[in-house]
Amino acid sequence: MSSVPQYLTGDKQGIKAFLDKFDVFLFDCDGVLWSGDHVFPGTVETLSLLRSRHKQIVFVTNNSTKSRADYKKKLDSLGIPASVEEIFGSSYSAAVYISRILQPPPHKRKVFVLGESGIEAELDSEGIPHLGGSDPAYRRDITPADYQAIAARDASMVDPEVGTVLVGLDHHVNYLKLALAYHYITGPNQATFLATNTDSTLPSAGALFPGAGSISAPLIMMLGGPGREPLSLGKPSQAMMDAIEGKFRFDRKRACMVGDRMNTDITFGIEGGLGGTLAVLTGVASRRDVVEGEVRPMAFVDRLSDLLAGEVE
Amino acid sequence: MSSVPQYLTGDKQGIKAFLDKFDVFLFDCDGVLWSGDHVFPGTVETLSLLRSRHKQIVFVTNNSTKSRADYKKKLDSLGIPASVEEIFGSSYSAAVYISRILQPPPHKRKVFVLGESGIEAELDSEGIPHLGGSDPAYRRDITPADYQAIAARDASMVDPEVGTVLVGLDHHVNYLKLALAYHYITGPNQATFLATNTDSTLPSAGALFPGAGSISAPLIMMLGGPGREPLSLGKPSQAMMDAIEGKFRFDRKRACMVGDRMNTDITFGIEGGLGGTLAVLTGVASRRDVVEGEVRPMAFVDRLSDLLAGEVE
Repeated sequence: MSSVPQYLTGDKQGIKAFLDKFDVFLFDCDGVLWSGDHVFPGTVETLSLLRSRHKQIVFVTNNSTKSRADYKKKLDSLGIPASVEEIFGSSYSAAVYISRILQPPPHKRKVFVLGESGIEAELDSEGIPHLGGSDPAYRRDITPADYQAIAARDASMVDPEVGTVLVGLDHHVNYLKLALAYHYITGPNQATFLATNTDSTLPSAGALFPGAGSISAPLIMMLGGPGREPLSLGKPSQAMMDAIEGKFRFDRKRACMVGDRMNTDITFGIEGGLGGTLAVLTGVASRRDVVEGEVRPMAFVDRLSDLLAGEVE
Repeated sequence: MSSVPQYLTGDKQGIKAFLDKFDVFLFDCDGVLWSGDHVFPGTVETLSLLRSRHKQIVFVTNNSTKSRADYKKKLDSLGIPASVEEIFGSSYSAAVYISRILQPPPHKRKVFVLGESGIEAELDSEGIPHLGGSDPAYRRDITPADYQAIAARDASMVDPEVGTVLVGLDHHVNYLKLALAYHYITGPNQATFLATNTDSTLPSAGALFPGAGSISAPLIMMLGGPGREPLSLGKPSQAMMDAIEGKFRFDRKRACMVGDRMNTDITFGIEGGLGGTLAVLTGVASRRDVVEGEVRPMAFVDRLSDLLAGEVE
């Protein structure tokens, strides 16, 4: 049974005490700092307050189409000061996992990508060779010759050094790329099946569109369904938390996850054994979700900027 | 507990008695009559034998990319005599289901197709208006304007008369079509989600490639996963058996399903309450699958042409 989350809005002493408990704040972004292209009032000031108290800030995003550098540009365009080093995206998380945990042997060193340039940039940053992805050579119909070449594992079509298939959001997903990904996973190298994240949908323009998880779905079904899911390197997978901790080297008990979704952000913090979780009501979760739901944060505020009341006078 | 299937190869009297039990033979094709482009020896003669005994023959195929007329051409090219009326494919099955069972009201009369020209031809044959499918207008990248138009249900992009989404194998599946299919299913019309068939893979050139089921998979995941699968109109779905019976009007007890796959063909016949099921060992199932598997046919032969021993002298 979860306990009742502490309501911090308007509770100046409560906020001060809460902030004092943590050295690191991990932020989900959309729904917390902004919505779409609209930055919530007080977002910049709240981040400033935390920085002035020497808190480490980490922007944690499941957006796999953007590299950290791309995401920094987005933050810049929204007027939110940030450094590339503070950004941790699911594509970077995947690249770090491959280079530092998987450490594929030379004959399996390449990654076949179903995804976009953000993934490629992060693989490059870790020195990981890759193919597929945004390469226009794969943006075409499958041909009879392709069937033959794939089945025969002809080197013109199937690279024998692929040891990993990494799937993120791909607006150019097609039959040829899915066929190749399946053949790498089931081929002689038994390529490791990874996903930047498993969000099935993605909000845009006030509606839902296919998310990265839906790009993995055909492969999961082809492989036999439940139990054949990829390892996810995005929230709420703890593989992402491990990667974040590996990079920032903090005490989990002195870290707090801030988010608007109970089943991704807050679950991510709780399962990661963080010292705290903080929900905001400016995104997906309602007050009722936060107070009565199955997954509950340690504390919540109506909006992030309510934390400004904790400023030292 | 299933009983032991009767082994008919070489059992002349057994074959005669078996054939006498049935007026109708439903045939799975690939793995039974041919493999790839190779017709098994004796296929034509065996079909002739059945016809000479006034048996009704139905070629039952889950191949959704071909209309009955297309499939007839394939049979012609393989040298197998057949009439269009003897062919029952999953696309035709879906078209019949929509026109005769669903009978959508006028404001939901259109079908959004994720699939190819075979589906379109069969919808046309039943007089069902459709969009999507092979229309080159949908073979393009999604644009920022598309997101807005889809979210706003702008009539330039979203047809308010779509009441059914039909998914088959689509070698031109893309992000835009998946986004539209999702919006029709979740939109104000709550479009009925149908699939021609749910085979996750498709054999070709000796390897496996994405099947029709894998085209539905992203939508199932976006809709919330298990429990949100489409109604399938292909084997082993009984919706297909109902459609076959509706067309040929036979006594199920006098019908026999012939196939090489226990979990699709033989299950299809058993669940349909057919009088008999006959397995062949020229396709997917091994002798052990047939004799010791969970799903077992009434009888089996090594190859279809073994039935020729039952010819009246």
